[in-house]
Amino acid sequence: MGFFSKDIKTMDDLFVHTLRDIYYAEKQIVKALPKMIDKATNPQLKADFSKHLTETEGHILRVEEVFKMHGVKAKEVTCPAIDGILEEADDIAGDIADKEVLDAGLIAAAQAVEHYEMTRYGTLVSWAKLLGRSDCASVLAKNLAEEKNADAKLTKLAESKVNLQAAE
Amino acid sequence: MGFFSKDIKTMDDLFVHTLRDIYYAEKQIVKALPKMIDKATNPQLKADFSKHLTETEGHILRVEEVFKMHGVKAKEVTCPAIDGILEEADDIAGDIADKEVLDAGLIAAAQAVEHYEMTRYGTLVSWAKLLGRSDCASVLAKNLAEEKNADAKLTKLAESKVNLQAAE
Repeated sequence: MGFFSKDIKTMDDLFVHTLRDIYYAEKQIVKALPKMIDKATNPQLKADFSKHLTETEGHILRVEEVFKMHGVKAKEVTCPAIDGILEEADDIAGDIADKEVLDAGLIAAAQAVEHYEMTRYGTLVSWAKLLGRSDCASVLAKNLAEEKNADAKLTKLAESKVNLQAAE
Repeated sequence: MGFFSKDIKTMDDLFVHTLRDIYYAEKQIVKALPKMIDKATNPQLKADFSKHLTETEGHILRVEEVFKMHGVKAKEVTCPAIDGILEEADDIAGDIADKEVLDAGLIAAAQAVEHYEMTRYGTLVSWAKLLGRSDCASVLAKNLAEEKNADAKLTKLAESKVNLQAAE
């Protein structure tokens, strides 16, 4: 979360901080996805990444909605975790010549991103409920459900077409 | 994965590289957990972290076994993703004064670590099968199962004692 944790005194502070962490993460993902779409060669993978870019733009709007509902400023805090995960994705997207091996690597990289978001949204939903903000929890749960769905679709794709072609 | 991806030409290269990525990650986690055990205040959380340290030491041995089975050198490659995730964990472990808020933050940090490992082991199991290495897949699946179990236990703890105390 890369934060000045001295400022975190209460569960509410921790909730708001983590919301700012995922806000930063989602914005970085929106920047990273076009490159992944461009690199992907499998048409289904390209389509899944494109759909997830649109979903991610929606996630940013939902996080902004939660900031508003909770009466705090929509602000980003640098998140070294997503920076590291995207750095790895960028490495993969870089230089693998074989198209199918590249696709398999891109799927793995995207799934690492999804899992990071799933754990953060899981935590945020739980903390929102704890703080009596079931309204915020239900908005955040929508993002969580879409991340889980995106991850499941990538698993299905990895286990069918892409990996089968890569092993040929 | 922080790698020189020009060296990755085949699915086998990608598998071995990712094995070296998780090998590095597990070794970094072994270094990070004692600090988290030390910081945790809830006795159950302390016990869960301690148990997971022992499990993580076992994961390293299993990954070394897979290197041997696959006939490649056990080697680490720097993994910016786990470095970023652990940097966040370290921030949390740093300075939150309230014990229960600190515990809630530590659980969230540990769950981000678990999710990273779950996605990597999930990918490795899938790729091992694809490469006809069901022997490697079954060893890696044991690590995956223990990571999933550790994550589920943390969720249970977060939703019961720790967060309830933190909200008081």
